[in-house]
Amino acid sequence: MSWPDLVADKKRRQEESIPKKWRILPVPANVLDVTAIPEKSGLLTAREIEITISDVETLLGKIASAQWSSFEVTTAFYKRAIIAHQLVNCLTEIFVEKALARAQELDEHLQRTGEVVGPLHGLPISLKDQLSIEGLETTMGYVSWIGNYAKKNAVLVDILYECGAVPFVRTNVPQTLMWGETFNHIFGRTTNPHNRNLTPGGSSGGEAALIALRGSPLGVGSDIGGSIRQPAAFCGLYGLRPSYGRIPYAGATNSLEGQDSVLSVLGPMANSISGVKTFMKAVINRRPWLKDPLAVRKKWDEDEYNLVDHGSGKDLCFAIMWDDKHILPHPPIIRAMQLVKQALVISGHKVIDWEPYKHEELAGAVRSIWNAGSDEDFSVTTSVTGEPIITSMSLDPGNEDPQFRPTPKTEGIMAYQLWQVQKRKRELRKEYLDHWEATVSRTGTGRPVDAIICPPTSFVACPHGMTRHTCYLATWNALDYSAFIFPVSTVDPALDSVRPPHAFFNDQDKAHYESYDPTVFSNAPISLSLVGRTMEEEAVIAMTEIVDAAVTAFKSTQ
Amino acid sequence: MSWPDLVADKKRRQEESIPKKWRILPVPANVLDVTAIPEKSGLLTAREIEITISDVETLLGKIASAQWSSFEVTTAFYKRAIIAHQLVNCLTEIFVEKALARAQELDEHLQRTGEVVGPLHGLPISLKDQLSIEGLETTMGYVSWIGNYAKKNAVLVDILYECGAVPFVRTNVPQTLMWGETFNHIFGRTTNPHNRNLTPGGSSGGEAALIALRGSPLGVGSDIGGSIRQPAAFCGLYGLRPSYGRIPYAGATNSLEGQDSVLSVLGPMANSISGVKTFMKAVINRRPWLKDPLAVRKKWDEDEYNLVDHGSGKDLCFAIMWDDKHILPHPPIIRAMQLVKQALVISGHKVIDWEPYKHEELAGAVRSIWNAGSDEDFSVTTSVTGEPIITSMSLDPGNEDPQFRPTPKTEGIMAYQLWQVQKRKRELRKEYLDHWEATVSRTGTGRPVDAIICPPTSFVACPHGMTRHTCYLATWNALDYSAFIFPVSTVDPALDSVRPPHAFFNDQDKAHYESYDPTVFSNAPISLSLVGRTMEEEAVIAMTEIVDAAVTAFKSTQ
Repeated sequence: MSWPDLVADKKRRQEESIPKKWRILPVPANVLDVTAIPEKSGLLTAREIEITISDVETLLGKIASAQWSSFEVTTAFYKRAIIAHQLVNCLTEIFVEKALARAQELDEHLQRTGEVVGPLHGLPISLKDQLSIEGLETTMGYVSWIGNYAKKNAVLVDILYECGAVPFVRTNVPQTLMWGETFNHIFGRTTNPHNRNLTPGGSSGGEAALIALRGSPLGVGSDIGGSIRQPAAFCGLYGLRPSYGRIPYAGATNSLEGQDSVLSVLGPMANSISGVKTFMKAVINRRPWLKDPLAVRKKWDEDEYNLVDHGSGKDLCFAIMWDDKHILPHPPIIRAMQLVKQALVISGHKVIDWEPYKHEELAGAVRSIWNAGSDEDFSVTTSVTGEPIITSMSLDPGNEDPQFRPTPKTEGIMAYQLWQVQKRKRELRKEYLDHWEATVSRTGTGRPVDAIICPPTSFVACPHGMTRHTCYLATWNALDYSAFIFPVSTVDPALDSVRPPHAFFNDQDKAHYESYDPTVFSNAPISLSLVGRTMEEEAVIAMTEIVDAAVTAFKSTQ
Repeated sequence: MSWPDLVADKKRRQEESIPKKWRILPVPANVLDVTAIPEKSGLLTAREIEITISDVETLLGKIASAQWSSFEVTTAFYKRAIIAHQLVNCLTEIFVEKALARAQELDEHLQRTGEVVGPLHGLPISLKDQLSIEGLETTMGYVSWIGNYAKKNAVLVDILYECGAVPFVRTNVPQTLMWGETFNHIFGRTTNPHNRNLTPGGSSGGEAALIALRGSPLGVGSDIGGSIRQPAAFCGLYGLRPSYGRIPYAGATNSLEGQDSVLSVLGPMANSISGVKTFMKAVINRRPWLKDPLAVRKKWDEDEYNLVDHGSGKDLCFAIMWDDKHILPHPPIIRAMQLVKQALVISGHKVIDWEPYKHEELAGAVRSIWNAGSDEDFSVTTSVTGEPIITSMSLDPGNEDPQFRPTPKTEGIMAYQLWQVQKRKRELRKEYLDHWEATVSRTGTGRPVDAIICPPTSFVACPHGMTRHTCYLATWNALDYSAFIFPVSTVDPALDSVRPPHAFFNDQDKAHYESYDPTVFSNAPISLSLVGRTMEEEAVIAMTEIVDAAVTAFKSTQ
């Protein structure tokens, strides 16, 4: 079969996997904000609406106490996921029967034994299209991988099953995964539910769009250069990029396999911090290092969650990174940082400025490492069917600047040259650590800065094909710092008007300034990132809870 | 200056750094076992002999209680180290004044405050010639690095100082570090104190030879393919190869820098397990992750040391790997495994056979990763002075088989090709983990095998230039398993005669069989390795204590 025929066949099979009774009437393309549509569709009962707007903690509690069955919770989210898919094209694999059968088994187990299977008992979980499930295809956006039926589950999928979860859909990605948007030859483009003219980000864009429409209570994305954080930020979710090896990756498909220096990581995305925490604790408590050799033998540490290394969470000192000395963030993001600063100060915490340290060089090292062999990786994969390698995420591909491809066409480099880049990255990591430790002289707490608060990217969700400047994101991949995205506000043209020009750092900064138009970004979520140290997931979760509570309290007084 | 002139100047400076009063009369070359010479040299007082044969725990206790001063302990070890150097050529940097001044400061501190500076207060520690000390040269066996005076301490050196230790000598290595023996153009060859016709192993060979002569109570080596374990085994020491990132490496010099897949690790070597344990606990408790970004944020775990994951150490199930299906170990090593098996069974533990799993492929992956860029790494380094790259460790270089160079001359490979090797290594790590977990069906303890006991190498300390077959060692680097070397016996021609030929695995195995002659290896220590999981250093130490005690008890009954 030619590659277009393979796509047609796969699309047909996807169509057939959608129950007819869950179809909704087409929504005109000029309806941009579709977040209210699922509840107005008439397809969801009041109880299903109640279920799907509940957070993870509530869901788990009600299922465990048999107030809600996993079957009805899974059904409710499945219906809503299918609705979401019809609005923003976010799903890849749809397997209703398999998921509902699993939910029913769990219900029966609970009824029979009075006990839950594990800490995620009965909870539907959505998975990025890398997380193989036995018997299902994993295409990861490659036509060449159509027909790749997994012989076994990814390790994380096994662990989620052991925890009692109900994996129920898989979600869309860009071809190669190496884009900050979500488009491929098989499933097409995912759009942002807050404004369908905008991208949901990528590469975990299908996941983010789905969760933003509350078509899933908890999802798993991956992040090698921002692929959890950017979509979480663009769609207004909570999303954690854990450190290398904290969550098991073995058995998931990936790009650039064998690249051992900047590792892709799996992590949770949800509408609540509790969802993120519940996931992390549940997975780590299953001792993933006994199933994945790269999973770090480090228990979930309740002391770290209680912030023993951070003065027990009292009188924290946060540092805000207003910019990275390379690109000034757009006005909504500056407003969000100002808001968070006020909220934290009012809550009794200290806030100082973060001095960025060689962010551009760090992000550049990440790109050089990817590009050392990316082109050959993509060519080898796509050559099976001859599907073209996508070179633009734009609706109008010819009109895009090739310099913004995250992985441009290259010949690759020699291993020795790669080592020199990796050596430099390692030196920069040491310098950055020393830089952070040195802040002890500025905090007044006797500790270095507890966490950095910074823009996830310099812009909010942007029109398709306009994603630029991975620097804010990839720096933390280079450093392997734990980074948590949290929503702060949404773009309001009245509050987020164009600001007077600043002294531009460079031409890119100037172009970035000029690209801002509040009407274009209207209704886009505004999110920030809290960044902690490597392997400090517990503390990063706890500190994000503190910041989030401060923001909520502050906003309620405005 | 030409490179020979640089060497002559450096050697002259080294000579001058040796106090004249610590010179001994030359020992004829035909005296092979020199282990008794230090105590017979007349240079050491009875008290100095008592000090230098004490183990780390005793030394720390007596210094902390001011029974012995750090000054006298450091002096005693320094004298003995200098004697050792004259016997086996094991030292590089000698800095008596600096070390004694430090010892004196520590004594004064203790006298003044009544308190120790830290858990290693007053203890002299020797360091492999990679561990930079501010103000001293670090040549690492490269003529091209003569004159490289360190501007700051390696992170580990800083931590040792914080712990109260007294770094007092640095020890010899092979040029490039990538050899299992110890020879370079500057300092020449280190020999084995048990039999100077034999190599002490490498690359931490200077360290091992020194400690075997009790010229140091505790030393630090490094291991990327066996470089702690082989010399520890060849010299009859205890030596631990920790997992990647458990001990901080930042600021130490190294070969193949930027190679991020098979990481070199630093680890302790000593005459007692207590020395190894004390070092590991002290360094990890200093939170090295705040100084080295690659140091893993994982506390010293007393629960793991108490073997909570191993039935609290009762009724352990060990698996003995009699061979790796590629090379059968020489008779002394088989005898040692038989002895350990008996000792463990008598102690009430269970012993089963370990099924090796693709060891040759794992070790091959390690070699391919090194060789991806090693030649260019060495060429770039040596080109500064034009010193030749050493291609043999033999006393008679022309007579050596080039296939046994651990890093042969190659053009290097492309980054993408390197990724394919690294990908395969990752798959093998997963397979090996599953293989280990599956032993739960064979142990009868309800747990998988608690630890593997295996040959460090297939041979004991061998004549110079005869080191072969890194497979037994490098497999554990590929897997990143924690591996502890412990001594069992010494070669006794009466007990360790040639055995009848077995069914050879291959030609290398046949040649290896034929290379055994008990008179050649006479008096060489026989050691074994206990191998545990990644990041399981605490449990590996505890289990080695159990095995060591069992062997001691058993031997006392023979």
